[in-house]
Amino acid sequence: MIKIYTLSGYEEVGKNMTAVEYNGEVVIIDMGIRLDRVLIHEDVNIQQFPTKELQKLGAIPDDSPIRNKKVVAIAFTHGHLDHIGAVGKLAPHYPDVPIYGTPYTIKLAKSEVKSEQYFEVKNPMYETEYGEIVQVSENLAIEFVQITHSIPQAAIVVVHTPEGAVVHTGDFKFDNNSPLGERPDYDRLKELGKEGVKVLIPESTRVAEPTKTPSEAVAQMLLEDFFLYEGMESDGLIATTFASHIARLQELIWIANRMGRQAVLVGRSLAKYTGIAKQLGLIKMKGAKAVRSPNAVRKVLKEVSQARENYLLIVTGHQGEPGAVLTRIANGELYDIGKRDTVVFSAGTIPNPLNRAQRYVLETKLKMKGVRMIKDLHVSGHASREDHRYLLRMLNPENIVPGHGDFRMLTYYAELAEEEGYLIGRDVFVSRNGYTVDIK
Amino acid sequence: MIKIYTLSGYEEVGKNMTAVEYNGEVVIIDMGIRLDRVLIHEDVNIQQFPTKELQKLGAIPDDSPIRNKKVVAIAFTHGHLDHIGAVGKLAPHYPDVPIYGTPYTIKLAKSEVKSEQYFEVKNPMYETEYGEIVQVSENLAIEFVQITHSIPQAAIVVVHTPEGAVVHTGDFKFDNNSPLGERPDYDRLKELGKEGVKVLIPESTRVAEPTKTPSEAVAQMLLEDFFLYEGMESDGLIATTFASHIARLQELIWIANRMGRQAVLVGRSLAKYTGIAKQLGLIKMKGAKAVRSPNAVRKVLKEVSQARENYLLIVTGHQGEPGAVLTRIANGELYDIGKRDTVVFSAGTIPNPLNRAQRYVLETKLKMKGVRMIKDLHVSGHASREDHRYLLRMLNPENIVPGHGDFRMLTYYAELAEEEGYLIGRDVFVSRNGYTVDIK
Amino acid sequence: MIKIYTLSGYEEVGKNMTAVEYNGEVVIIDMGIRLDRVLIHEDVNIQQFPTKELQKLGAIPDDSPIRNKKVVAIAFTHGHLDHIGAVGKLAPHYPDVPIYGTPYTIKLAKSEVKSEQYFEVKNPMYETEYGEIVQVSENLAIEFVQITHSIPQAAIVVVHTPEGAVVHTGDFKFDNNSPLGERPDYDRLKELGKEGVKVLIPESTRVAEPTKTPSEAVAQMLLEDFFLYEGMESDGLIATTFASHIARLQELIWIANRMGRQAVLVGRSLAKYTGIAKQLGLIKMKGAKAVRSPNAVRKVLKEVSQARENYLLIVTGHQGEPGAVLTRIANGELYDIGKRDTVVFSAGTIPNPLNRAQRYVLETKLKMKGVRMIKDLHVSGHASREDHRYLLRMLNPENIVPGHGDFRMLTYYAELAEEEGYLIGRDVFVSRNGYTVDIK
Amino acid sequence: MIKIYTLSGYEEVGKNMTAVEYNGEVVIIDMGIRLDRVLIHEDVNIQQFPTKELQKLGAIPDDSPIRNKKVVAIAFTHGHLDHIGAVGKLAPHYPDVPIYGTPYTIKLAKSEVKSEQYFEVKNPMYETEYGEIVQVSENLAIEFVQITHSIPQAAIVVVHTPEGAVVHTGDFKFDNNSPLGERPDYDRLKELGKEGVKVLIPESTRVAEPTKTPSEAVAQMLLEDFFLYEGMESDGLIATTFASHIARLQELIWIANRMGRQAVLVGRSLAKYTGIAKQLGLIKMKGAKAVRSPNAVRKVLKEVSQARENYLLIVTGHQGEPGAVLTRIANGELYDIGKRDTVVFSAGTIPNPLNRAQRYVLETKLKMKGVRMIKDLHVSGHASREDHRYLLRMLNPENIVPGHGDFRMLTYYAELAEEEGYLIGRDVFVSRNGYTVDIK
Repeated sequence: MIKIYTLSGYEEVGKNMTAVEYNGEVVIIDMGIRLDRVLIHEDVNIQQFPTKELQKLGAIPDDSPIRNKKVVAIAFTHGHLDHIGAVGKLAPHYPDVPIYGTPYTIKLAKSEVKSEQYFEVKNPMYETEYGEIVQVSENLAIEFVQITHSIPQAAIVVVHTPEGAVVHTGDFKFDNNSPLGERPDYDRLKELGKEGVKVLIPESTRVAEPTKTPSEAVAQMLLEDFFLYEGMESDGLIATTFASHIARLQELIWIANRMGRQAVLVGRSLAKYTGIAKQLGLIKMKGAKAVRSPNAVRKVLKEVSQARENYLLIVTGHQGEPGAVLTRIANGELYDIGKRDTVVFSAGTIPNPLNRAQRYVLETKLKMKGVRMIKDLHVSGHASREDHRYLLRMLNPENIVPGHGDFRMLTYYAELAEEEGYLIGRDVFVSRNGYTVDIK
Repeated sequence: MIKIYTLSGYEEVGKNMTAVEYNGEVVIIDMGIRLDRVLIHEDVNIQQFPTKELQKLGAIPDDSPIRNKKVVAIAFTHGHLDHIGAVGKLAPHYPDVPIYGTPYTIKLAKSEVKSEQYFEVKNPMYETEYGEIVQVSENLAIEFVQITHSIPQAAIVVVHTPEGAVVHTGDFKFDNNSPLGERPDYDRLKELGKEGVKVLIPESTRVAEPTKTPSEAVAQMLLEDFFLYEGMESDGLIATTFASHIARLQELIWIANRMGRQAVLVGRSLAKYTGIAKQLGLIKMKGAKAVRSPNAVRKVLKEVSQARENYLLIVTGHQGEPGAVLTRIANGELYDIGKRDTVVFSAGTIPNPLNRAQRYVLETKLKMKGVRMIKDLHVSGHASREDHRYLLRMLNPENIVPGHGDFRMLTYYAELAEEEGYLIGRDVFVSRNGYTVDIK
Repeated sequence: MIKIYTLSGYEEVGKNMTAVEYNGEVVIIDMGIRLDRVLIHEDVNIQQFPTKELQKLGAIPDDSPIRNKKVVAIAFTHGHLDHIGAVGKLAPHYPDVPIYGTPYTIKLAKSEVKSEQYFEVKNPMYETEYGEIVQVSENLAIEFVQITHSIPQAAIVVVHTPEGAVVHTGDFKFDNNSPLGERPDYDRLKELGKEGVKVLIPESTRVAEPTKTPSEAVAQMLLEDFFLYEGMESDGLIATTFASHIARLQELIWIANRMGRQAVLVGRSLAKYTGIAKQLGLIKMKGAKAVRSPNAVRKVLKEVSQARENYLLIVTGHQGEPGAVLTRIANGELYDIGKRDTVVFSAGTIPNPLNRAQRYVLETKLKMKGVRMIKDLHVSGHASREDHRYLLRMLNPENIVPGHGDFRMLTYYAELAEEEGYLIGRDVFVSRNGYTVDIK
Repeated sequence: MIKIYTLSGYEEVGKNMTAVEYNGEVVIIDMGIRLDRVLIHEDVNIQQFPTKELQKLGAIPDDSPIRNKKVVAIAFTHGHLDHIGAVGKLAPHYPDVPIYGTPYTIKLAKSEVKSEQYFEVKNPMYETEYGEIVQVSENLAIEFVQITHSIPQAAIVVVHTPEGAVVHTGDFKFDNNSPLGERPDYDRLKELGKEGVKVLIPESTRVAEPTKTPSEAVAQMLLEDFFLYEGMESDGLIATTFASHIARLQELIWIANRMGRQAVLVGRSLAKYTGIAKQLGLIKMKGAKAVRSPNAVRKVLKEVSQARENYLLIVTGHQGEPGAVLTRIANGELYDIGKRDTVVFSAGTIPNPLNRAQRYVLETKLKMKGVRMIKDLHVSGHASREDHRYLLRMLNPENIVPGHGDFRMLTYYAELAEEEGYLIGRDVFVSRNGYTVDIK
């Protein structure tokens, strides 16, 4: 019998963690954090906090249901913090258990491990290729299927068991035109469908949208449409997006080159994510530079402010995060922002009251300074309902455990599944953090 | 002194009509209808109704404030019914006054005139070129500036007066990548700004959106992304969009060709709009056919239903309009729609309770039959806030009279204008149907 | 083992039908219709349609899962059409099976049976008292517990089985101040909780509201606050509410008396519901009159229109239903409505696109005539989240099957249940129309 | 000529300030603060900040347009901080100018003056009676008309000029059933209408609601309905509401008495507002106590926590304000809150992203501790559209300058005025902070 431990991420967007048990052996998939649960408490520095405290705050998954199990492998679907951010806190519970992921994911996980200040993580960490099947015990093997998302090298993780495959999608979209050339491996997905999928664990964050999620190429077109026409006539240009969204950053750098401006990426996390991406050949920084240290940031922003028409600034802070570069600029620090500047938000507002408030504060301050703002030059990285339907039809799973979403999102997935012939309670299981689903 | 008669379209989306008076001479811009005001009354056949009745219903503009004025010209911005649909009812009030517009617009206006059953319209109608300046009286000249919208050959109409230009945008967006190659004439707009614009009358329908409206090329990409990947594997494929949206229809025909399917356009209005577009070389119907007569429609749908995988059906009815092809199909007529079919809505839902209800009825019926639906593969044809801001900065008008929108939309425009240095009541005038704004 | 047949009303608001099986014997609870499913089809006259057709349209429950079962009783919770409206279509499937309900409910059910034109209904129908326990077979007994709702004599139906009680709430609220003096029987509910409730089947329509539903006394106060102050100075006064909402109608009659105006109830359904209520002593019509026949309606409205200040008109049509009195008045029939008249909506808008459209048409027409409208002098008849929580705590059921609501509403109930210690799939079962839940 | 200075509160809900000039003499109405503009900046302590800084932050009105005018009187409509909170910062600009208001308002203003740490306020302050007309210069007199709002002794301020009356509503509702017995002075309002109102300056915060605002008696009923039935069976009971809402607090105290519990009001601002109210005989504290000092708070909460069933706690913090008692309790301080406790929110969420975020944090923390929450046992203190219409019909003003609201709210008011025969730009003037409206 296969047992699915829906440890975390089944009541929220954030802190994903799932475990698949077969015959007493367990594979863990993802170990994420939930930042908004940290945000509601002041003075919480994750790096310096012990695991128990963070679990109590709801900031990281509670792994107690599997603490004493025989864990044979840990697999990461992709490198976002809500999937790997708790590695420093939870991997030590399973010392010596190997961690697997695609190269970009593993390099980011190592960076997390390095910044962890409370624990030492000694698990071996392996970079896997798409398509590679890793035997992790006599009975179990894991496979990483290529998929597209808003970060490079995202994977669908398949746990092969003697009773059939358990497919965990991680976060994904079906992008047929990604500017970086990544494509979903439809062939392998269809093959898996033919081989027989015992359980599908899909993400559910945008399953309520009755459409197909647009390609990243659409975001590129939105950005080009503004920058290469109207933007050419502008003075100060500041773009802000997710630091891990390498494709988006690459597009902005290409655009800056075409405009004859220098792209300047400012902020620690931008430097970190693009640095690792560059190592792996995932981004070309030609014509651009990234600055990281406080001194360098101060210096470069001073230069830019004196010849705004020569630069395209790319900064962190699209959600108004405290301490981010754009937030500090709006506070009157670092760069004299004003009527001559345009801020382009190449990111949505994360729909959480805390984010909305931070973003509102940011926009209010920028507006009071006369800054022009252009929003929503962005597309989502998450599958919509019709993408999910296509996946269902390719995989034709026996059972479904909707994952990554709040209760509402999971039930929207269940509704879709019912349209495709499943029935809640029979072969679609809406579970909750900390519970298990037994698959007969 | 210039007087702006805000006759209609200043309290709604629909039935546009504006008049510009200088020294006793008047130029009329647009004569539209408001379909939802017809819809709320049963048994109203516009073609057979007299003008007064329709004015009382709020279905067409009340032109009484200018009935006895010396009207020297009528100009149409583009061919949508909310801009030209009342020509048959109102032009007879101004016999012999010439009507001007771009070729596609004039041909559509002639088609309206032809179907009018209550009045005879004898006004001369002239096709103008972009850039052409037509002297319509000693003091007044009109000019048609190229702009982009969701119908071919849309124009910004400029009324040149001795006191400066009055610029009426009609409906527009700034599309820098239109697949049909149409582009806004930024050079002429900037030139007008330098020459001096006395009054700007912009549309206001989407000014509340804090972004730049995506190019039509984005809609093309959304459609290709679905049809050329997942759609290739599908059985019956039915797309529905606006019959006047020639660019969208062209994209669908191109896509059908690339899929190796025949595009079949079904429905009278599709035949009408594409027919005129074809005459003018605005659409290439290669590989496609349009059927119009009830018999032909019945025949072709029977054929298609027997070999669905060979066709891409393009039909009317995206708003669930009674009598439209998709509506009839959903009712169980014409084509045996079911689980094997996918309906692609390449159109939004028009945000009016009547449309929402019709669309709801349509979708409920399709869903009860097991039809798959994909929505929102669409982009708007209307400028967003940042497009409007750009227009304002190019034209730098002395005065603004926000047009085409309900009260809320007009005040959103006023708010934007205030951000750009104007003040409501001083140089931004929020007016109402039937009133006038005097420009000193 | 107890089996719950969630026949209908588990995917919508409307057409309720549930069956409880124990040891091969079945009790049916409610047989309702779903009006919006009729509305989307033109030319459907329910009275003249056969059962199968209506089931296919989704207008009445599909009872096939229990057609061949041994049904021993049919119980009605209350007299709204979504609970009793299909009696004429479905009761004939179970000839001779007795039907039980409170007096007002049974009298309304008999009225339905009488107007049925396709079938003859011969089931014996019995009026039960609150608290009475009716033995319907050796093993099964049913009980009607007093509860409050927006119609008189609503009941919670309890099916007593050897394995414990099955409690079906019907629609309800906890109203501690009902102007008519009806009160929830908290004592009996608590007693049932102590005796042991095996299954609770609660309604779910407003469980997402995080509050306690206001008493009907609040609606009375809202009405008095307007009518007895400002309304005193008004000319024509027209109120519209649900014809079955006897408490609300009683309040309006009391108010009219206090204003020195005559309350005139116009319309067939108002006459029907108040007529039966009067028989049972549930309403005092002193000072009021109800007119029903087309001629009388025409005559009385003519009288009223000539001395508006002497009357308070109470009419049907709060949802803009075609053919209702207010709808006809808005169309310019029966009564010359205009600037001198105020329409008070003592009802919400039912949140369905069809209703919204009808209501929009109604309001648009009234507004075009200059009528003043006051909305939302109303409170709901359905329990909110905190009422449901209180019920849960009183009954402490072993299992829960959320009823009466769409999928979303059922899952909101499940979420509440989880807060109270239940778990979806273990002891809370979200079911769907046509399926069953087995209770171990 | 009368000139209206719309100094502040015309682009927001908050920081009201208006000035009326006639023949060179000026009357100021209200001097409020805008707390959300303070909230977006950290480390701003209003009491210790100079006027200019606070004006730059948008936290208090910019009074520069009238700094050098001959100000003859300052009138306060009521004691809320968005109407009197800037007295300590702005009154010093007009030394010796007398300040007028009702007794409760003036006592609160004096309290503000006392806590001011940057300036010394020396203006004489006078308590006026409703109906009293105070001659403030040869030409000008001011009058305070009784009205109802969510704080005692609210007034409509009338500035009588030789050209007619200027009526400033302050914030108000028409409450015909206030439990404290306060009533709007309809007679005087109608009389003013007959005498002739030159300008009406109404608040606009809820004019978009198409109803009549419920009486405070409704809130009382909602509270009683919960507390006197279900609440009787509960353990810990905590209510939270506005500290200045004396009627609401009185109701809670009455309810506690009826329940046989002691009402304990905890927090500095509760003590302040009830203290002054008690002095004026506006609240009876019989059976209740208010604790203010940190030590007393700690002590009383310890007592309460040991015998929860004997108390009804009334605390500050309904918006999750940092430092408020409920916020601290949710943080785990002062009182061991948990599953045995119910928190009743007798207040809405102020619709501002910052408030929503604070409230979200508060609720999340309480929910994580298992606390039961009941929301929305509350009614608004602001007039809805139909109340405003009634006021318009009573006063029949020549001109209207909608006040207290953002741009959207002001235009909703203008729309209502147009329904009543006014026209924007002609006799309804939508103004902006810092501008003036000249009344001919």
